Amino acid sequence: MPTYVYAFDHKHRKAPMLLKDLLGGKGANLAEMTSVLELPVPPGFTITTDACRAFMQAGWPEGLDDQVAKQVRRLEKAMGKRLGDPADPLLVSVRSGAKFSMPGMMDTVLNLGLNDESVRGLADQTDDERFALDSYRRFIQMFGRIVLGVPGEDFDRLLETAKDWDGVQHDAQISAETMSRLVDRYKQLVEEHTGEPFPQDPTEQLHRAIEAVFRSWDSPRAHAYRNRERIPHDLGTAVNVQAMVFGNRGDDSGTGVGFTRDPSTGEQGAYGDFLVNAQGEDVVAGIRATEPIAALGDRFPKIYKELLGIFERLERHYRDMLDTEFTIEQGKLWMLQTRVGKRTGASAVRIAVEMTKDRKIKLSKEEAVQRITAEHVEQLLHPDFAVPDSELDVLTKGLPASPGAAVGRVYFTADDAADAADRGEQVILVRNETSPEDVHGMLAAEGILTARGGLASHAAVVARGWGKPAVVGAEEVRIRGRSFAVGDTLVAEGDVISLSGTTGIVVADEVPLKPPEASENLETILEWADEIRAGRKGVRGLAVRANADTGPDAARAREFGAEGIGLCRTEHMFLAEDRLPVVREMILADNEEAEEAALEKLRVAQKDDFYSILEAMDGLPVTVRLLDPPLHEFLPDLHELEVKQMTSGLTDEETKLYEAARAWREQNPMIGTRGVRLGIIKPGLYAMQVRALLEAAAERVEAGGNPVVEIMIPLTVNRPELALARSWVEDAIAEAAGKAANKMEISIGTMIETPRAAVRSDELAEVADFFSYGTNDLTQLVFGFSRDDVEARLMPIYIEQGLLKRNPFETIDVEAVGELVTRSAEQGRAANPSIKLGVCGEHGGDPESIALFYRAGLDYVSCSPFRVPVARLAAAQAVLGAAEGAGDTR
Amino acid sequence: MPTYVYAFDHKHRKAPMLLKDLLGGKGANLAEMTSVLELPVPPGFTITTDACRAFMQAGWPEGLDDQVAKQVRRLEKAMGKRLGDPADPLLVSVRSGAKFSMPGMMDTVLNLGLNDESVRGLADQTDDERFALDSYRRFIQMFGRIVLGVPGEDFDRLLETAKDWDGVQHDAQISAETMSRLVDRYKQLVEEHTGEPFPQDPTEQLHRAIEAVFRSWDSPRAHAYRNRERIPHDLGTAVNVQAMVFGNRGDDSGTGVGFTRDPSTGEQGAYGDFLVNAQGEDVVAGIRATEPIAALGDRFPKIYKELLGIFERLERHYRDMLDTEFTIEQGKLWMLQTRVGKRTGASAVRIAVEMTKDRKIKLSKEEAVQRITAEHVEQLLHPDFAVPDSELDVLTKGLPASPGAAVGRVYFTADDAADAADRGEQVILVRNETSPEDVHGMLAAEGILTARGGLASHAAVVARGWGKPAVVGAEEVRIRGRSFAVGDTLVAEGDVISLSGTTGIVVADEVPLKPPEASENLETILEWADEIRAGRKGVRGLAVRANADTGPDAARAREFGAEGIGLCRTEHMFLAEDRLPVVREMILADNEEAEEAALEKLRVAQKDDFYSILEAMDGLPVTVRLLDPPLHEFLPDLHELEVKQMTSGLTDEETKLYEAARAWREQNPMIGTRGVRLGIIKPGLYAMQVRALLEAAAERVEAGGNPVVEIMIPLTVNRPELALARSWVEDAIAEAAGKAANKMEISIGTMIETPRAAVRSDELAEVADFFSYGTNDLTQLVFGFSRDDVEARLMPIYIEQGLLKRNPFETIDVEAVGELVTRSAEQGRAANPSIKLGVCGEHGGDPESIALFYRAGLDYVSCSPFRVPVARLAAAQAVLGAAEGAGDTR
Repeated sequence: MPTYVYAFDHKHRKAPMLLKDLLGGKGANLAEMTSVLELPVPPGFTITTDACRAFMQAGWPEGLDDQVAKQVRRLEKAMGKRLGDPADPLLVSVRSGAKFSMPGMMDTVLNLGLNDESVRGLADQTDDERFALDSYRRFIQMFGRIVLGVPGEDFDRLLETAKDWDGVQHDAQISAETMSRLVDRYKQLVEEHTGEPFPQDPTEQLHRAIEAVFRSWDSPRAHAYRNRERIPHDLGTAVNVQAMVFGNRGDDSGTGVGFTRDPSTGEQGAYGDFLVNAQGEDVVAGIRATEPIAALGDRFPKIYKELLGIFERLERHYRDMLDTEFTIEQGKLWMLQTRVGKRTGASAVRIAVEMTKDRKIKLSKEEAVQRITAEHVEQLLHPDFAVPDSELDVLTKGLPASPGAAVGRVYFTADDAADAADRGEQVILVRNETSPEDVHGMLAAEGILTARGGLASHAAVVARGWGKPAVVGAEEVRIRGRSFAVGDTLVAEGDVISLSGTTGIVVADEVPLKPPEASENLETILEWADEIRAGRKGVRGLAVRANADTGPDAARAREFGAEGIGLCRTEHMFLAEDRLPVVREMILADNEEAEEAALEKLRVAQKDDFYSILEAMDGLPVTVRLLDPPLHEFLPDLHELEVKQMTSGLTDEETKLYEAARAWREQNPMIGTRGVRLGIIKPGLYAMQVRALLEAAAERVEAGGNPVVEIMIPLTVNRPELALARSWVEDAIAEAAGKAANKMEISIGTMIETPRAAVRSDELAEVADFFSYGTNDLTQLVFGFSRDDVEARLMPIYIEQGLLKRNPFETIDVEAVGELVTRSAEQGRAANPSIKLGVCGEHGGDPESIALFYRAGLDYVSCSPFRVPVARLAAAQAVLGAAEGAGDTR
Repeated sequence: MPTYVYAFDHKHRKAPMLLKDLLGGKGANLAEMTSVLELPVPPGFTITTDACRAFMQAGWPEGLDDQVAKQVRRLEKAMGKRLGDPADPLLVSVRSGAKFSMPGMMDTVLNLGLNDESVRGLADQTDDERFALDSYRRFIQMFGRIVLGVPGEDFDRLLETAKDWDGVQHDAQISAETMSRLVDRYKQLVEEHTGEPFPQDPTEQLHRAIEAVFRSWDSPRAHAYRNRERIPHDLGTAVNVQAMVFGNRGDDSGTGVGFTRDPSTGEQGAYGDFLVNAQGEDVVAGIRATEPIAALGDRFPKIYKELLGIFERLERHYRDMLDTEFTIEQGKLWMLQTRVGKRTGASAVRIAVEMTKDRKIKLSKEEAVQRITAEHVEQLLHPDFAVPDSELDVLTKGLPASPGAAVGRVYFTADDAADAADRGEQVILVRNETSPEDVHGMLAAEGILTARGGLASHAAVVARGWGKPAVVGAEEVRIRGRSFAVGDTLVAEGDVISLSGTTGIVVADEVPLKPPEASENLETILEWADEIRAGRKGVRGLAVRANADTGPDAARAREFGAEGIGLCRTEHMFLAEDRLPVVREMILADNEEAEEAALEKLRVAQKDDFYSILEAMDGLPVTVRLLDPPLHEFLPDLHELEVKQMTSGLTDEETKLYEAARAWREQNPMIGTRGVRLGIIKPGLYAMQVRALLEAAAERVEAGGNPVVEIMIPLTVNRPELALARSWVEDAIAEAAGKAANKMEISIGTMIETPRAAVRSDELAEVADFFSYGTNDLTQLVFGFSRDDVEARLMPIYIEQGLLKRNPFETIDVEAVGELVTRSAEQGRAANPSIKLGVCGEHGGDPESIALFYRAGLDYVSCSPFRVPVARLAAAQAVLGAAEGAGDTR
């Protein structure tokens, strides 16, 4: 029979802190504190996750009761008390403890072991009847609610009645007599609800409490939480049974929570709260004002010193900042729990950097880098609400598309937004969705809110590019003219709203913001990350580039640490006010001369754009994608023209544009005449772009620069198509490059974004110098999920119902899209060993996706400029993770 | 050094007719006739395709001249004449001959060996100066045009001038004197054009003619043809050099083409045309009226008998109907060429069936089935233009979406078309594209023409389902109100047009039609096909089902030989005039009761639909796909409502519909809220459909029937999604099936149509009883090619430029889509050995695709009812092809 139960002082072969799979987080740390550090921990034992898994599969495990009974006897011996002893009962707490901290599961039953008889023994032993009755009352309430399923509010109502009866305000003021009656009423309530009297046998109490913990693993809330946090459902939870100690036994008692360093700032020294004569739940309930932990120094100087010593030992042992719970029972300190403490971004980077300098902890740079999360970095880079989310009056929630918080007056058109910003207003642009025509309004706005679209929609991509907060796909938002409604709430033009692109929350009011904090520690961490991801002998590196379309964007990306541009979208250049009419000329051209004339004008303009980008990224690779979007994106909205046609009529020019817009209209533009397909029906277009680019590069060479040009053909499906497009580019190079040609590094490659290209990468690699994975489109096509339509409407439902573990537009779908990328990379390298591989989809900035791309053998990732710091960190972590062989991708 | 040249009488180790790869088709058959059958063939030799391939790689092959010279000496010896002999010259013809017959390549140079001297020898030998000069004139013209690249019309102009000079009508009337001058003028023309005199050395003439044949393999026309016909570019062509014989040496001479049976009807007996005193080109030119071949019996009884004897020997030897060319030179019969004859559908099935009964030929049933093509079957099933395509005045060409020809007056709306049909008019419905709202007009029309959309567009799918001729994606068609224009041609409402859905041709006039011919022979062939594809021990079979949505369609499909329904689209039922309002009620419902009430009404209606389908297919499987299309397809057109809103205003009801249409509008509906995604946001919908289906099945059981129900979930992407949908269906089954349940066979499966489903088929197979490959959507997503947009606009360009060998919506893309299907089928079977696999995409009716599906291990294919006979034949051929291990899928 397997061992299902381990005492905290069991001598495991490995350090117990490493046995979280078996003992759960709480149990592992309790055992570590007890058996390794020999700290003052109330004795107890842990029922393993194995037992929980066995229970889930086949009911209560055979022999478990015996093993528990044996450990109870051992505990009784240690404490010198017996469970249920009417004279001097042993009381225990029962707590769940899974590998990962999990709200939604059964938390804690305290004071187990009390019954109608032992409560009197407790009263005698403590000489405090009220304390004993209150303990019993609390036990019945917790056990009744958590184990027996009696609604908590029924207990609360009785408690309120008791206070009314005594005419008092606080629980602590209830008289012993009334408390006694309350115990009776509680028991009566349990019997009414369950049909049975409150269980008096402590062994039965314990059995049922353990079973309730097991069952709570499968509660809907726990299930939903695990889905959200991507925790496997088959881990199971452990159960910790521990002797009770009481912080509410008088003024020589107390309870507190303590951090070994400040979790907000990272400042060294103990930090926390403390309450005299109280139990843990009183600290949490916040009825009495807590004192700072330093106050212990005055009240309990010896204990305070002991506690600081323990904190130091814990830090040295765990080599991290710890979060603890402790209780003082009649002058004796007990450690009830410890775990690695949660912290803010500022605190995280400070602690990580300082611990590398601490002689006793000696954190390595690698360890320091692995301690920082993407969320920590984001916190340091973007403004955020200065108010906790729980205190916000949330109007609606959309997809968090671009991090940071913003406040402003709402406007519904790009023009109105730009005008208001010109007047000095802070503006939030609210649109159903944005299009390239809206960019001036987006640029003018503090933040962007759209009712439709997903994380890779136009609004999301552009906002991230500028580091501008954005919430997209807020489906509840119904725009009607110059106002929008969410349910019954109406927000009119000029009203102030606040939004957080980090969480997706929208508030119909002004929320105070806190600015991002410049952090030297972050710089240090990122420098270390760069050292790690540079690779070394036997270890591949992973470069980080940025997606940027203009000189200023490129310069900013370089400041953020980008090592090149992975995606320069040339269409954005087409939308400038002075270019759009020329682009339209090109589309409308009804003969070759007219088309060429328009292309020539565009060439001149594009050349300047390219020059400034190559200048900003001098010496670093710049991947320029030839025109990709469907041409109708450059034409006026068909619908608006039709309205005008019916009302005021169209001018000749407008009629032409109308005809063109009709001709280029598509049912499903996302899978329509885009990418290289445009090149095939308008071959002059791509040749013009390549000429402009090469002329810019040649001018850079003449100016003493070092342009590194990569020309990328989008949306290819097979080799003949790519070979044809490559031949245009090569022709244009031969024509345009001239004398500077041999000083330029030029390579030609393709985006891999159709499933076909991914499946046939071997043949494409034969005519490509590089691949760049366009994982947005690839995801869209592999799932058949339109980013514009499905993501906002369906993704929340899919996640909620557990149909998808996560939004595949946010984190790469490992099983299919990731698998296709991995196989494609293998094929590509096999067919062309010198091929360069990168990713320029939005996944290029997502840590988990970055880990997959590194494992797949990619050379670089590319993301929006503001995301580069996160990508640098994640890339280093990917390199370290792969070195550890940590293949776990959950 | 390899052997590059073989004489016709060379004794090959294999039958020469099997050596087409080496000798080309023409050379192989000439060698077969000479060396095996010992027929009277003018001697000659073949320069192999190896020589051509060597030439293409590295220029003129070393040693080839020597080998040719050796064969020329052998030929001279056999003929007793020398090439270029001024006294009695040997003349030869030079013809290309690739493995496959290929227009666009160099055809024939006759009379090679003539020069200024030998022409006099020929005159002396034949005692016919005019003949000799005419022969020389013809040679210069052919050699000049084909080998030297002199424009043909320059020769024609000189010839016309010569006739004017002599004041005659026909070439044959030109005098010897004028002919002599014409020869001089021709030589002068050549010299002007090439800068060199006309080559006089026969060895040089021969060398250059051979080289010209080699070069013609790579001509743009040949290239384009091979792309179209999917012939590899690296095969190369052979060259045949053959001693000249002359059918124009007097009234004891002549030339003709003869078939061993009638290629139109298949009737037994020689069939062909004949001209006395003429050369082959005269027969082709059609200047003089030919005589039927039987006329030979009167004029040349002995030769006629000899020819019939040769025909019989050829048929017995080739075991097929042959097409021959022959010449009679001064009373002696020469066979110049033979090949298996092209034939009509009626002829093909008659010949195949009759040859199985012919004791000397003894064709097996398997061979007979393999002789019939899909085109043959289509010809027998659908009306066609009674005029050859070359004689049509083609207005435009679109995609051939549904075979057969139709004539009628054009109407531009479904209502107008239906009204006109009610008045007794024959109608062609012309639309930009069709939608489910147009079906009544489509039903009323003789044929359908759309300006947009591909082979899997709504118009195409519906038209094929009804066997109604349709041309789709005719991009040149510009509809403006009640007329359409193609270039400058305007076709107004009520004008008559004709269209062929077999070829895609549209004519702005009435074209006479020939009706389909009922054919017992076809029935015989199809019965044999059914026997073959039933499979036998050790040989898997391949079933054929139909896609049908109504009882009458199902009944018709069964008549055509369908063995079940592979796809019943339930959305078509939603569009009936009495259902659509209820569907809209369901969509508009703003509370659960209203939604349930609408669903209940639909349930009653759907039950009747299902009953009639299950009745028609009693005992055979019926796969019902739960609702698939985006809901906005059931709502009125948003644009029309907006127009109305701006003009006459909307009623309350219309306002509601307008709001709903706006809410359900999608940017890319094809990858939007469709398929199982609908089920997820409207779970009651699928439950209703399943209930209706099961109730219908239960009623069938009560009526003594045997319903076999397969319930199909569309557009799934992963296991949790399919498992959830399956649970709804199972719940509905448990609820609805009642007492009849155990008599019904019910299985639950999914369509595999997203790339993700194809890649993750193992996990889907665990919760599916069957897979049906939806290859239309799968192709769309694998390529990222919207069927609605890209297919019509880009596919012709892609094919023309050789970027795709064929339209992947017509014939499955073997390399990627086919590969995904194959791997998915393997995965599916591995995970669930009892899984049933089929295909219900449009590829289910395409012979080449069917062969792939059989190799991939699928159990059945499903196609539109009218295509079932083709699929039955193709399925049998797939089974036979796989047995032969003929893995060639070009």
